[in-house]
Amino acid sequence: MKLTKEQSQEIKDLQSQSYKTKRVTAPELEVILYEALPILDHGFIRVIDYMGNDNSIVQAARVSYGKGTKKVNTDSGLIKYLMRHWHSTPFEMCEIKYHVKLPIFIARQWIRHRTANVNEYSARYSILDKEFYLPSKENLAAQSTNNRQGRGNVISGGQAEEVLSLLKDDAERTYKNYEEMLNERYDGSVIDESKTGLARELARMNLTLNTYTQWYWKTDLLNLMNFLRLRADHHAQYEIRAYADVMLNTLKRWVPITYDAFMDYRVGGTEISSKGKEIIKKLIKGEKISIEETDLSKREWNELMLAFSLKDKLI
Amino acid sequence: MKLTKEQSQEIKDLQSQSYKTKRVTAPELEVILYEALPILDHGFIRVIDYMGNDNSIVQAARVSYGKGTKKVNTDSGLIKYLMRHWHSTPFEMCEIKYHVKLPIFIARQWIRHRTANVNEYSARYSILDKEFYLPSKENLAAQSTNNRQGRGNVISGGQAEEVLSLLKDDAERTYKNYEEMLNERYDGSVIDESKTGLARELARMNLTLNTYTQWYWKTDLLNLMNFLRLRADHHAQYEIRAYADVMLNTLKRWVPITYDAFMDYRVGGTEISSKGKEIIKKLIKGEKISIEETDLSKREWNELMLAFSLKDKLI
Amino acid sequence: MKLTKEQSQEIKDLQSQSYKTKRVTAPELEVILYEALPILDHGFIRVIDYMGNDNSIVQAARVSYGKGTKKVNTDSGLIKYLMRHWHSTPFEMCEIKYHVKLPIFIARQWIRHRTANVNEYSARYSILDKEFYLPSKENLAAQSTNNRQGRGNVISGGQAEEVLSLLKDDAERTYKNYEEMLNERYDGSVIDESKTGLARELARMNLTLNTYTQWYWKTDLLNLMNFLRLRADHHAQYEIRAYADVMLNTLKRWVPITYDAFMDYRVGGTEISSKGKEIIKKLIKGEKISIEETDLSKREWNELMLAFSLKDKLI
Amino acid sequence: MKLTKEQSQEIKDLQSQSYKTKRVTAPELEVILYEALPILDHGFIRVIDYMGNDNSIVQAARVSYGKGTKKVNTDSGLIKYLMRHWHSTPFEMCEIKYHVKLPIFIARQWIRHRTANVNEYSARYSILDKEFYLPSKENLAAQSTNNRQGRGNVISGGQAEEVLSLLKDDAERTYKNYEEMLNERYDGSVIDESKTGLARELARMNLTLNTYTQWYWKTDLLNLMNFLRLRADHHAQYEIRAYADVMLNTLKRWVPITYDAFMDYRVGGTEISSKGKEIIKKLIKGEKISIEETDLSKREWNELMLAFSLKDKLI
Repeated sequence: MKLTKEQSQEIKDLQSQSYKTKRVTAPELEVILYEALPILDHGFIRVIDYMGNDNSIVQAARVSYGKGTKKVNTDSGLIKYLMRHWHSTPFEMCEIKYHVKLPIFIARQWIRHRTANVNEYSARYSILDKEFYLPSKENLAAQSTNNRQGRGNVISGGQAEEVLSLLKDDAERTYKNYEEMLNERYDGSVIDESKTGLARELARMNLTLNTYTQWYWKTDLLNLMNFLRLRADHHAQYEIRAYADVMLNTLKRWVPITYDAFMDYRVGGTEISSKGKEIIKKLIKGEKISIEETDLSKREWNELMLAFSLKDKLI
Repeated sequence: MKLTKEQSQEIKDLQSQSYKTKRVTAPELEVILYEALPILDHGFIRVIDYMGNDNSIVQAARVSYGKGTKKVNTDSGLIKYLMRHWHSTPFEMCEIKYHVKLPIFIARQWIRHRTANVNEYSARYSILDKEFYLPSKENLAAQSTNNRQGRGNVISGGQAEEVLSLLKDDAERTYKNYEEMLNERYDGSVIDESKTGLARELARMNLTLNTYTQWYWKTDLLNLMNFLRLRADHHAQYEIRAYADVMLNTLKRWVPITYDAFMDYRVGGTEISSKGKEIIKKLIKGEKISIEETDLSKREWNELMLAFSLKDKLI
Repeated sequence: MKLTKEQSQEIKDLQSQSYKTKRVTAPELEVILYEALPILDHGFIRVIDYMGNDNSIVQAARVSYGKGTKKVNTDSGLIKYLMRHWHSTPFEMCEIKYHVKLPIFIARQWIRHRTANVNEYSARYSILDKEFYLPSKENLAAQSTNNRQGRGNVISGGQAEEVLSLLKDDAERTYKNYEEMLNERYDGSVIDESKTGLARELARMNLTLNTYTQWYWKTDLLNLMNFLRLRADHHAQYEIRAYADVMLNTLKRWVPITYDAFMDYRVGGTEISSKGKEIIKKLIKGEKISIEETDLSKREWNELMLAFSLKDKLI
Repeated sequence: MKLTKEQSQEIKDLQSQSYKTKRVTAPELEVILYEALPILDHGFIRVIDYMGNDNSIVQAARVSYGKGTKKVNTDSGLIKYLMRHWHSTPFEMCEIKYHVKLPIFIARQWIRHRTANVNEYSARYSILDKEFYLPSKENLAAQSTNNRQGRGNVISGGQAEEVLSLLKDDAERTYKNYEEMLNERYDGSVIDESKTGLARELARMNLTLNTYTQWYWKTDLLNLMNFLRLRADHHAQYEIRAYADVMLNTLKRWVPITYDAFMDYRVGGTEISSKGKEIIKKLIKGEKISIEETDLSKREWNELMLAFSLKDKLI
């Protein structure tokens, strides 16, 4: 990630701001506010603003429960309870806003989370930066053979070089032709004074999906956790996981108690079906059980065994 | 509105908080943060937290438009432009959280605005306060004769007394019986040690709809304005308008530039249909036009004439 | 539940409709379309319209997965897979619309599910029916002693009579006074020709929370299942569960394959935290474990043991 | 647009379906159900399913207004009234589902309408079709000189040829390299048996933004009209307008009365600000007014004058 001088200066200026407020603050999050946290080759995440902290969740729950809440001893106990029982509304009382730079094909996955507010850089209006995502070699994986939407082994040296060179050449050529059609270079200089450029809203269609875009993305804590649960999961595509991982760190700085409960109950947790529960009960009793006695599919059986690290029972 | 000593002290404590933050602030809103702004006889609105200010809207719009935005000279010009052209996403970048005490029948109107986060006091869990809304005499209006969902004239003295006494007696009796069924008074004292009380989740059904409830309500600036446009309008029921009016003041303190644009384009503005436009065009040209030449209904014609203060054209 | 002659006739007429359509249908749901399924003393649920069936879910998933889907053998296998892995969007492709008559205090719980469309009977506009919910004796439970938001034992005979008579008298008196203030009875007859009635939007505040209201409520299949998971659960208040139970039957008629998967993975399933999983693993291995070796609270420990029917391990 | 034999046959089969239903139907919409309505060079819209018709809106409004509604004479009058006064919930009672094939850069605009359900073809899972959008010559416009996000004149012959050839070559080359990296052609044949292909989720990043994707898109009537108001507007990009125009026709077939009201009040209507209204009032009175006497910007003044076809007042 490379910032322009202008951008670095703007961030420095924002970070040296200091206002007084009666609002609650999240001191650990303030430390990294506005900072550009690098992701992939040209991407970043910046926390731009936030509202509330762990205490805001407790406060909202206490309004709901009224005098009854006094019994729960600690804030941490209350937050754990809320998380365990899937209470949703208290977690909606906190809000966070990010500035994100990310490749378009990742933006397309991301935007499927609808309960969020977005302002994206408009390529109808302005020219996109000349930046494309090129995976590092260790992330150039082959198609998985047993999971249609996943990756298998890293591909070998020679082929990796080839892939990278195809990606790089195509992105550069399409970007160059984008400029040609616009009759304007990224820096604003006109290419041929005798020509008029194609409309930006049309020229952009020539760019490849690894071109970087950027947006402001704002959501509440509940929906942020829904996002992270899916996108920091090992089933998620590596490139979006890279963003989710950095965001997990911002979550920890923002609401540390909620973060702990989230890691325990959501990220590290497991769901078991009614049928799965019967199997586990038998296993606890020391009874033998085989897939034939159940009506689980092979896939479902294996998922269950793996969830409890019963590797010898895989079939 | 009467706060308990405990509540007044809590508010004082919150208001004397002072934290440092790098986030943007809204100084005029900070002045009234946490304060209980009285509404109706026992209700209030408190601003509990907020995120962003006018500048956050500008900043979000500038991310969208990229380098192209430079041309618009001022922040105020940009915000007006966004408002005039119904741009929505930049206004979603600001968030506000209120603590509201309000009668249940008003809460039921309010909750129909779905794009908001809510934590309401739970009468399954705790006993509701002994507070009911009783309209002041000047708000005791008769059913409107020409608008099925509106009010007509204020009702006269004797009948007003009667209505108020019915409302008061019924609210007090049903609340007393609520306590009887719970076998517990509001202050927590048990009524008859030899009895067990009815479950709170059942007993509450005996309360009247003017009983006060309370909630935390959080929304973004765009949806707040949608709420205010409908609820501060003269077609809205007086009781919810009383809340909306106080919230308009908090809007002004929070985002003064947006407030001005909102008043001009939304609150004071008018929508004209395609057919209505043709009529106005003729009027501007000085042509005569009567309802017979249009296919407007009488109601629609009158709405149009009133919008342009053409009282002599009402039929 | 008692329908007026007019209502019964209208339902009969609707049920004798027969149109041709190229759309997919749900034959079992058609059988009960428009029918008023009675709930509580005066409430009902009617399925008014629907869109899609099990096949629509499969079809939507196949668009997503393209040619890749062919491998999954059966529709049922695919729907189970989607449910198990919390895929959400294919279930959003089906939609259902209900007409519901329900007590206001239940309507207030229900409306907290925001992702739905609602048209409620307006008491600003029209007079509410003279119908109140009165629990049957076996549902008159005492406040639970160990769960602040639940019910304990059924309350005994004498006290039950008392409670019912309080509820009945208060509802009837407040309704009578509602009519007095309106100067109009439910049947539209004026009470005193020399008076004008109070505005409906004001008079309604005198009604108790067990008064029945009604609405059209429309939602997609995913959000319907979210609703049913919470509201058909034994933690939910009995009165809303009564609605959820009837709706579960309509779910079964509408999308039988999805219904089976829902019962297995959602309703009958369990979530285990990261820490809980470690405990279950030890139990499967036949190791001993006591709460002291974990950092679970007593409450959390017991919830875990109950989930796997390990009653001897409760503490 | 070219459908495969398989697709044409599937559509034929669906169109020859005939089921009986008690649900309301929209006969004119049934006529084109499932049909692929061609848009741009390879895109299409298909109506796959729908729920409700004009009558469902009336019915929902009547539940809200209760007995009070009887006064409004006709269904058409009621729908017009609801539209004029921005009533929203009755229009949410109808739902429609489309199957859409569209270029990725248009899909990115489209998806910003969040209140809809979407299942998109997954390029993580399957290989995308070899189809790119190439504008027809009359749609190859230059960048507008006075509107940063619009188009100006059509660009001239020679340059148009150049642009089209750049777009075509780049799309074809990047697609060919996409196949190379996958080591698989679109038809499923392996390119080089000695190699393993790059994961699909990575290879797709090499495609250009004019590549076609497809999805199922389902929304309610209110949100469909919000979409169409923005996207059928002359400010919208031509390519998305092409879709909106075809969808307007499906709207007309589905809910003809609503369509008429929508065209009159929304599409053909205008909003006037508070300040603008004062100016129009003066013009109606025959008074002179110039921009100097107002505090409108030049841009806002001109927008107002154009709305009422006062071309001689443009400055």
